[in-house]
Amino acid sequence: MIKIIQVGLGPIGQQLTRYLTERKGIQLVGGVDLDPAKTGKDIGELAGINELGVSVSPDLGSAMKETEVDVAVISTVSSLQKIESQIKDAADFKLHIVSTCEELMCPFDLQTEIAERIDQYCKEKGVACIGTGVNPGFLMDYLPAVLTSVCQKVDHVKVDRYQDASSRRLPFQQKIGAGLTQAEFKEKGDSIRHVGLKESVYLLARALGWEMEKVEETLTPVLAEERIELDQILIEKGYIAGVEQIAKGYKNNEEVISLNFKAAVGLSRSYDSIEITGNPGFRSVIDGGVNGDVATSAIIVNTIRSVIAMNPGLKTMLEIPAPAYYSQV
Amino acid sequence: MIKIIQVGLGPIGQQLTRYLTERKGIQLVGGVDLDPAKTGKDIGELAGINELGVSVSPDLGSAMKETEVDVAVISTVSSLQKIESQIKDAADFKLHIVSTCEELMCPFDLQTEIAERIDQYCKEKGVACIGTGVNPGFLMDYLPAVLTSVCQKVDHVKVDRYQDASSRRLPFQQKIGAGLTQAEFKEKGDSIRHVGLKESVYLLARALGWEMEKVEETLTPVLAEERIELDQILIEKGYIAGVEQIAKGYKNNEEVISLNFKAAVGLSRSYDSIEITGNPGFRSVIDGGVNGDVATSAIIVNTIRSVIAMNPGLKTMLEIPAPAYYSQV
Repeated sequence: MIKIIQVGLGPIGQQLTRYLTERKGIQLVGGVDLDPAKTGKDIGELAGINELGVSVSPDLGSAMKETEVDVAVISTVSSLQKIESQIKDAADFKLHIVSTCEELMCPFDLQTEIAERIDQYCKEKGVACIGTGVNPGFLMDYLPAVLTSVCQKVDHVKVDRYQDASSRRLPFQQKIGAGLTQAEFKEKGDSIRHVGLKESVYLLARALGWEMEKVEETLTPVLAEERIELDQILIEKGYIAGVEQIAKGYKNNEEVISLNFKAAVGLSRSYDSIEITGNPGFRSVIDGGVNGDVATSAIIVNTIRSVIAMNPGLKTMLEIPAPAYYSQV
Repeated sequence: MIKIIQVGLGPIGQQLTRYLTERKGIQLVGGVDLDPAKTGKDIGELAGINELGVSVSPDLGSAMKETEVDVAVISTVSSLQKIESQIKDAADFKLHIVSTCEELMCPFDLQTEIAERIDQYCKEKGVACIGTGVNPGFLMDYLPAVLTSVCQKVDHVKVDRYQDASSRRLPFQQKIGAGLTQAEFKEKGDSIRHVGLKESVYLLARALGWEMEKVEETLTPVLAEERIELDQILIEKGYIAGVEQIAKGYKNNEEVISLNFKAAVGLSRSYDSIEITGNPGFRSVIDGGVNGDVATSAIIVNTIRSVIAMNPGLKTMLEIPAPAYYSQV
C-alpha cells in the first residue's frame, strides 16, 4: 500500500483526490492547502465524494504528524521557482514527489540552477522527484520520444495538439483567452501562455540526444470567425476564441522539432498527431485527441508506481519505467 | 563508447551490423556466427557495407579475446529454450544482452522456470538482459501500455496490426505462408505462427496489473481472392495469401485484451491501431503501419542505451527507461 499526501486542493487537487482514492494499492492519508477556508475540512467531502476521515492541514508538517507517508503529490503552481521550497519541504519528510508543475517536467536546460539545486537536495534526502502531466509530460514530448524507439534515423519530429475547447471546463476556456477582446488578450499577455511547451522541446531533444542551438516560441490568438454562444461563455465575432502556441527547436541551423499547440472554442476538429520524418517515417494520430481534464490527473496517479522505484534525484519521464495505468500496485 | 558484439549474422544480424556501425557512441567490435562459411569473413563486408576490420568468430570466446565488450546483441533464435545457453555464455563474459528472441520478450508467465533461471543467472553475473523488437516488444504491447499512462480507468485494450505484405521481403512473405496451398498451410502448422503474440498479451497485462485467467490464440489462413502475381511470388486464387493470428486475454471471465495480427499479400490497407476503452477512451492509429523490416533492428539498437543503465537480471520493456532513437550516447 503506497501512502500519499495530496498537496494543493484546488480543482486539480480535488480531482487527484478522487482518482487517488479509487485506485487499489494507494491510500490517501493526508491533504494540504494554504487556504484557511479549507483547513480542517474532510478531503473526501471537499473533493465531492464520500468522507475519507482525513482532514485538510495548513502545512505538510501537520499532515505528517500522525502517519507514515511515501509520496507527496503536489498540484499547486506552474513555476519552478515557486515550487522549489515545497519540494524541499516534502524531501525533508523523506517523501518522493510527483507534481503537475509544468516547469518541473524538464527544467535542466531552461532553469539549470534551480533544477540542479532540487536534484541535489532530493539526492541528499534520498527521494525521487518528477514533474509530469498530459501536456507537458506525455503527448507532445514523452510519447513522441517513445515512438522514435522503432526508428533507425530521425530527421524531424512534428507534434500537433489541436483542441476544440467548446466542451472543456470554463477555467480551461478562460485560460486560453476565450471571450476576450484582442486588446484584453494583448494585455493579459504571458498569463495566457500554455506553460511547458519549451520544456517539451527540451525533453524530446534530450531523448534523441540532440543539442538544441535555440528554441523559439510564438503565441498568437485564434479569432472567432462568427459569434459563438455556449452555456458558460460568449465570444463575439473577431474576439478571441483561443490560442495557437508553437515551439520550434533547432540544431545545425535546421528546425528539427516543431510542437504546435492550438486550443480554441469552435475548432472544427480535435486531434493529437505525431509525425516522425525518418526511417521509418510515420504519423500517429489520435482522432478526437486525449481529454486533458482527465488525463493530467490520471498520469500523475499512474506515475507514482514508477517513481517509488527510482533512485533519488530530480527525474524526467525519460528516466522512469513507462508509467501505464495499473489496477493495483 | 559502448562496445558491442553481434551474435548471429543472418539477415537480421547483418542489418543490425549496419545499424550498429552507423550509430554514434556505439562501436561494433565483434561478430559471432556458427556457420563455418562465415567464419573469418569481415562482418562489414558480410553485411554489405565497407570493411570494418572485424572478422566473424565461431563462438563468443574467440570474439571476446582481444577486446573489452559491454553488450551482446543476440539475433539467433525465437525460442527461449534455445537461447538460454547463449545468454549464459554472454553473461559469463559479463556482457549485457539485448536480443530479438521473441519468447524472451516476456517469458515469466509462459515459461516460468527458464525465465527465472535466466533472471537468476544474469543477477549472479551482474548483467541485464532484455528481449525486444517491433512485434513483440513494441507495437502490440509496450506502446499500448505507454498509452494507458493517461487513463484513469482501462476496461479493454484492442490492438490491430494489419500489414499488406506485398512489398515486404520474400522471407517475410514465405514466413506468413504466402503462395502455399491450404493443405501445405495445414501441414506447416505451427511453423507459420508469428512467435510472441501471447507474450505480448502477458506484457500488457503485467503493465496494467491484470492477472490473466487465460490467454487464447487462434491462427487462420487468409486466402487469395484472386490470382496474385508479384516479382518474387505467385499466389493462385484460393491459395494462402497470409495469416490472421489473434490472441485474447481474459480476466473475471471477460475479454480485456485483444491482439490481432494480420499479414497477407494483397491486403487493401496497412495500419497499426491501438484502441483503449476506458476513461479517457481513445484510438491511436498509424496509417500505413510501421515498417517492421527496419523497426526491429532499430529498436534493438535504441534499447542498448536503456539496458546498460539497468540493474542486473532479466528485464522487460516495462522496467527500462523509454528507449527512443538517439544520435549519440
